[in-house]
Amino acid sequence: MSDFAAGARRDTKWWGWGESGRLPHLDATALALLRDELGALEPAGRPARAEDVRLPPPEKLPASIADAAGPEHVLEGAEDRLRHAVGKGYADLVRVRSGRLEHAPDAVVVPPDRRRLRMVLEACARDGVAVVPFGGGTSVVGGVEPLRGEHRALISLDLALLQTVELDRTSMTARLGAGLRGPEAEGQLGTLGATLGHYPQSFEYATVGGFAATRSAGQASSGYGRFDELVTAVEMVAPAGDLRTLETPHTAAGPSLRELVLGSEGVLGVIPEVTVRVRPSPEAERYEAWIAESWGAGAEIVRELAQAELLPDVIRLSDEEETRISLLLSGPTGPAGRLFDRYLGMRRRRSGCLIVIGVEGEREAVARRRTLAARRLRAGGAVYLGQGAGRSWKRGRYDGPYLRDSLIDAGAMVETLETSHTWSRLRALYDAVAGAIRDSLREQGTPGIVFCHLSHAYGDGASLYFTLLARRRPGEEIDQWRRVKSAACEAIVAEGGTITHHHAVGRDHAPYMAAEVTETGLEVLRAVKERLDPAGILNPGKLIG
Amino acid sequence: MSDFAAGARRDTKWWGWGESGRLPHLDATALALLRDELGALEPAGRPARAEDVRLPPPEKLPASIADAAGPEHVLEGAEDRLRHAVGKGYADLVRVRSGRLEHAPDAVVVPPDRRRLRMVLEACARDGVAVVPFGGGTSVVGGVEPLRGEHRALISLDLALLQTVELDRTSMTARLGAGLRGPEAEGQLGTLGATLGHYPQSFEYATVGGFAATRSAGQASSGYGRFDELVTAVEMVAPAGDLRTLETPHTAAGPSLRELVLGSEGVLGVIPEVTVRVRPSPEAERYEAWIAESWGAGAEIVRELAQAELLPDVIRLSDEEETRISLLLSGPTGPAGRLFDRYLGMRRRRSGCLIVIGVEGEREAVARRRTLAARRLRAGGAVYLGQGAGRSWKRGRYDGPYLRDSLIDAGAMVETLETSHTWSRLRALYDAVAGAIRDSLREQGTPGIVFCHLSHAYGDGASLYFTLLARRRPGEEIDQWRRVKSAACEAIVAEGGTITHHHAVGRDHAPYMAAEVTETGLEVLRAVKERLDPAGILNPGKLIG
Repeated sequence: MSDFAAGARRDTKWWGWGESGRLPHLDATALALLRDELGALEPAGRPARAEDVRLPPPEKLPASIADAAGPEHVLEGAEDRLRHAVGKGYADLVRVRSGRLEHAPDAVVVPPDRRRLRMVLEACARDGVAVVPFGGGTSVVGGVEPLRGEHRALISLDLALLQTVELDRTSMTARLGAGLRGPEAEGQLGTLGATLGHYPQSFEYATVGGFAATRSAGQASSGYGRFDELVTAVEMVAPAGDLRTLETPHTAAGPSLRELVLGSEGVLGVIPEVTVRVRPSPEAERYEAWIAESWGAGAEIVRELAQAELLPDVIRLSDEEETRISLLLSGPTGPAGRLFDRYLGMRRRRSGCLIVIGVEGEREAVARRRTLAARRLRAGGAVYLGQGAGRSWKRGRYDGPYLRDSLIDAGAMVETLETSHTWSRLRALYDAVAGAIRDSLREQGTPGIVFCHLSHAYGDGASLYFTLLARRRPGEEIDQWRRVKSAACEAIVAEGGTITHHHAVGRDHAPYMAAEVTETGLEVLRAVKERLDPAGILNPGKLIG
Repeated sequence: MSDFAAGARRDTKWWGWGESGRLPHLDATALALLRDELGALEPAGRPARAEDVRLPPPEKLPASIADAAGPEHVLEGAEDRLRHAVGKGYADLVRVRSGRLEHAPDAVVVPPDRRRLRMVLEACARDGVAVVPFGGGTSVVGGVEPLRGEHRALISLDLALLQTVELDRTSMTARLGAGLRGPEAEGQLGTLGATLGHYPQSFEYATVGGFAATRSAGQASSGYGRFDELVTAVEMVAPAGDLRTLETPHTAAGPSLRELVLGSEGVLGVIPEVTVRVRPSPEAERYEAWIAESWGAGAEIVRELAQAELLPDVIRLSDEEETRISLLLSGPTGPAGRLFDRYLGMRRRRSGCLIVIGVEGEREAVARRRTLAARRLRAGGAVYLGQGAGRSWKRGRYDGPYLRDSLIDAGAMVETLETSHTWSRLRALYDAVAGAIRDSLREQGTPGIVFCHLSHAYGDGASLYFTLLARRRPGEEIDQWRRVKSAACEAIVAEGGTITHHHAVGRDHAPYMAAEVTETGLEVLRAVKERLDPAGILNPGKLIG
């Protein structure tokens, strides 16, 4: 047994997010905010130890699986099964905290290389074992849910051992193994003087394979590009054969099969490796904050920057509510808070909208691009808040899911969801989704806080990322969550927005795929699935239902 | 009968490229060059009139076709059949000039709207009539070749009447009908203050639907983006149903079906309309020429510009041979020629490589981007040749195919082909392809001129565009062409380059698709085809063979 497969991936909370010891303290300001806006909360419990969580008894796997993987690469212990039984969505965390899971993989298989990976898939196809490909397990849409469909057994196929890093310094591309977590990929590229620049909030634990399979978008995607824009070539191992696209910068040779593999969410095949564009490690960076007069004025600034092709690498515009909450929680007496107060006083306003921008790269380019962006920000009526709040945002860019654990402990429901639309329809989408979430919470007797930021800006539109906080309904958390989630999804579909800009489809968004791509589009995906995975073993119940 | 369907699309040479009256005069310099380098040429003839070209007698179409399209939208005359029987590749022109075609559509159907388009496809599927979707008919890879496969009859489905132009000024997107030619789309967008910025060499006659179906890349694609990068949403009408993707700037909802429709070359369905990103009409532009010390030094400059994200909108680097020929043909006594001579004299060199750059947009952005690019050009050892040669390139950007007609008249074989690769493998690809073409011509006893430019640069690589001129083998032109073309394709495949960066696959590149996307990839495309077009009526023999 490789040590890596055996233990190294047990470095996270089995019941929550990230480093085991890390659970942010909610200070008096935060607790007062929760009490004032959500009402009195009943703290949520959780099992003390992983072994306290009850799992369904495992089905016996056919011997062919261990033969294919090598027996040392099959993990059958309860903690490994537990750690591969759920993702990191709010509903996942609620279920783990309940101390009982209805579904779990019968074993975790960790193939050491592509050859064994293929052998495992072939054995599973032959013997009718369902396969859930597993990267970082950070899905928030039920992407790793162990649904076995019509099959009697199910394995979680953990790609952690696929760790290739090969840099082509001339072409500035790198081959990266699916199992590399964000910091592992960046760390190795960094020693070679390169960066991928892909920083989703899940960066610390999500993997390269997951980025590809879910069309991940990072916080700096306005500059570095989304993951699908970074990938230049893919390989996919499917039960029916191996698919590969050429490592060339572009081709007009038919429909893009690279773009068919990206976003395939483990339903069509397993992605062992991708080739991606990289950039030189940035020699300078500048993060800073601005305040816009309103959500509308801020969005107009971002639109103008995008359409003038002057976007910083990072740009995010918080709505009034997110601005208020984040300045409150980050300390209103800090420099950003004081500047914000002074801003409001000077303008006789009660609110404004925080804009964070970040620029990275060659020193001279950073200065030039920052100056050009700042000019547009000022022209749009925004006021400079300094680098402090920008740096503070960057320092805390991966903290959201840790804070969620503390908030759930305190008794709150916490969920995030996202969509995108064209500029001309973005405001209507914003109003509809925020309204649907608020209405659903109110109808359930748990009105809460709903806020949003605009990020991932493009010439033609942008994404919206909503966060909601509410008092949980003890014992009915899943029903509460499902009602809010459905209300938000239906509002998105009614407005013609996408059901997901970067969280992917998984199980939770699968019912909305026909609205997204038409029934004919779904039929196309099913036809591809049937050709590549005739036994239907790959990730049943996800993406295409 | 709409006048448009009846006659407006007869505004081109039926036997060659573009405007009927336009046939560039080959001056004494050009004729001397041809004689010196290719040997004595035997001028090529052609029929005097369209009606002199013999076509196979038409099969009678089922009445359902005219019922579906409306009888006034079915053209059965010989000239319409002839004009839809071939594309504009060298082999196409040779065949038309021979006065006899083996294949022609039995009729041309010009549906007036999407509803009739769907009805026509349904009638054809029901009654076993093959369909070749037809945009501008400018394919150079056999994309509109009327191959009927197993079907008894075949129509050319001309989309000329689909002429939608709808601008969303806030989102800077436009819905464009498939039948709009380049200048028609630009003309209408221009009156609204917008531009698509898509300028392939075929711009004057190619259509929006063709751009989408073939993944077109324009000469300014380094700046404006290739056509696949401009498209934000697609619709496709297939016999089995209609597919549509949402008009949102991005989605992570599964594999990209937009990218499956783009490049589908009429094999999976018909694209009636696309939504594309547009930009404000440029307020300024600057085109200029530079000379690099060598092909290698020039490529290094382009690579550095691309990797520093400072690419002009247009950038093309000619190799020594293309530089020599184009300066000779454009007049060595003009300002660019004199500067070039002075450059060679000063450096005691015999050759250099021409670089043309072009920047368009807001006045200030043009100045800024030009300055940044010029700094890198100088740092890479390139010498400024002034705006004259740049402007002259821009004026003549669509002239190549006209010149080809004159060269064919004079007795030459003229062919172009293109590929792409990563920077680290570009030189090897260049050497292999140029070598394979030269070897094939030499073996056939018709050694000629082979030259190349690098364009469409990316961070990870670039495309190579080869032109070859040789003495034709009278009566054996097709064999001559086929041998050179095969040699070049095989060299590309052996080097791992793409079989096509932007000419698409059509009939000519179909044999190389398995090398491009693997057999499994081809199976995926076939599965999609079978689901969308179960009767197999759409464009038989193209793309997937």
